[in-house]
Amino acid sequence: MSISPFDDFRALLLNMPLPDELAMDLATRRQKELTKPEGALGRLEEVAIWYAGWRGKHKPVVTRPLVAVFAGNHGVTEENVTPFPQSVTKQMVNNFAAGGAAINQICVANNLGLKIFDLALDYPTMDIAKDAAMDERGCAATMAFGMESIAGGTDLLCLGEMGIGNTTIAAAISLALFGGNAEDWVGPGTGSTGEYYKRKLATVKRAIELHKNYLDDPFEVLRRLGGREIAAMVGAILAARAEKIPVILDGFVVTAAAAILYKANPHALDHCISGHVSAEPAHTRLLANINMKPLLDLGMRLGEGTGAALAAGIVKAAILTHSQMATFSEAKVADKQ
Amino acid sequence: MSISPFDDFRALLLNMPLPDELAMDLATRRQKELTKPEGALGRLEEVAIWYAGWRGKHKPVVTRPLVAVFAGNHGVTEENVTPFPQSVTKQMVNNFAAGGAAINQICVANNLGLKIFDLALDYPTMDIAKDAAMDERGCAATMAFGMESIAGGTDLLCLGEMGIGNTTIAAAISLALFGGNAEDWVGPGTGSTGEYYKRKLATVKRAIELHKNYLDDPFEVLRRLGGREIAAMVGAILAARAEKIPVILDGFVVTAAAAILYKANPHALDHCISGHVSAEPAHTRLLANINMKPLLDLGMRLGEGTGAALAAGIVKAAILTHSQMATFSEAKVADKQ
Repeated sequence: MSISPFDDFRALLLNMPLPDELAMDLATRRQKELTKPEGALGRLEEVAIWYAGWRGKHKPVVTRPLVAVFAGNHGVTEENVTPFPQSVTKQMVNNFAAGGAAINQICVANNLGLKIFDLALDYPTMDIAKDAAMDERGCAATMAFGMESIAGGTDLLCLGEMGIGNTTIAAAISLALFGGNAEDWVGPGTGSTGEYYKRKLATVKRAIELHKNYLDDPFEVLRRLGGREIAAMVGAILAARAEKIPVILDGFVVTAAAAILYKANPHALDHCISGHVSAEPAHTRLLANINMKPLLDLGMRLGEGTGAALAAGIVKAAILTHSQMATFSEAKVADKQ
Repeated sequence: MSISPFDDFRALLLNMPLPDELAMDLATRRQKELTKPEGALGRLEEVAIWYAGWRGKHKPVVTRPLVAVFAGNHGVTEENVTPFPQSVTKQMVNNFAAGGAAINQICVANNLGLKIFDLALDYPTMDIAKDAAMDERGCAATMAFGMESIAGGTDLLCLGEMGIGNTTIAAAISLALFGGNAEDWVGPGTGSTGEYYKRKLATVKRAIELHKNYLDDPFEVLRRLGGREIAAMVGAILAARAEKIPVILDGFVVTAAAAILYKANPHALDHCISGHVSAEPAHTRLLANINMKPLLDLGMRLGEGTGAALAAGIVKAAILTHSQMATFSEAKVADKQ
């Protein structure tokens, strides 16, 4: 077997850390002792136990939640699949930097750190309907860059993205990974209706036809159909796993990045939860394919990590209740008769 | 027509303030100018425009969000409808005061004020299967007490409750207001399974049979079948309307209180939203009957205002994005080609 730049990533998938079972057991027991009926906090209890397992603490605390937003540009916009010019990606990155975007305000609301990673916006990937998006070295380097994104430290990572054209990319990846028809995966994204929608659909079909002999390997799916923000997020999810940092996924595009890892190893996303299901129709289908149930369903379809960051507020509340509530014996509250 | 202690409340329902249409129009226009695709924040946009209307400001700010929790005891527990002793209500009130309950931590997480209103816990209402829960004067006085609960001021009111036996009360109220079978409205509440469930069901049926000739008037439903925390929440919702304070409802019991006002006037809840749908099966049915779509669906069934307080985090984020994001022209971001 030849040496591939992806081998290091494949090796990581063969040797992933697992959650701490003792911490999960103690957290599960603690949930039963807190001053509430058993199970009465619903998914908040599940989230708290999940988080306890990954952090290895039965009464965990979230101290450095981080939203990491990755921005990339896509050659596929040459196919006229979206009414927005590619230049909007850079303009929105500037808007993030100036604090003017939705993600900035949701981070303020939920007290989350925010880092923006701008991935060579002046050098879009190749048009996937005509060529592979990236070469092997470039794809691997971008994944490695994504792995470094959490080097500053965090104990709760929310992923987000910005990239004009990237719902076309996410649709192509989803179709490559899970099959079906292009119509199952191509949706309006940001304003791709009418003729834009028709071209988007045709473009995804052409891309799959062009690359069809190379799509058994999820890393080849990433390289041929992905964008740089997708590759970076794949790296970030892998790095978070290696450091046992829980991850909250955002919408369709972030979930497509996660799905690449799921296809490589169905346990690769055990440290991840879905923050929300977006209004992009294919997101529901994609979540079903990777066995995830979203926390929120608010009809959002913005990206930027907004759904993940909003869900982080729920996750933080879940962990705070778990770790700070009184037990029945502490509070002298009677149990059942 | 004879003078009734409820006449003042009926008068309020005939003369309710409406949202400020100019503020709503300006807020709607602002949403279209913010740096995001139109509608991309989904329900967050609806919530922000709703809030803007009630506060009369097109760029509103939430400064004093408050969770008001009302606690009452119920004579219906004599029917052995729940495995928990009535004394737990007081114990949980003490737990709220000590900061040990789930609602305390969710208030910390979302930076919400919290006030607990203890409604004569040593003097439970009458058993609704044998008598009217309250006399007219007592019911009206409790509603008036509930109206005073917001006198300290708030600009976002989350309602919560605590009361052993009060899902039996909520089921009886719902059946009285909206009909159907007792089975449609009686659920497990907090641990009422098996024989407890059977007694709960039979008790609701007996209560409806006993009071059946007096249930056309929603205020009589409240007096005969309600509890003090229900009456106080009815008052709080009315007072919030008079002061144009937006309200977030919690689970089945809070929604049953709101439903009394809805039945009296379907526009009485225009200043209210549903924070979540609880795991108590009848809550979904009750929300459908009052035409409300919950923000969250997390399988919670605790009460205390926990679902409303969790949803308040979403509402605060919705208003912050609405009021603080940059517009396209401010951020120099291009619109469609």
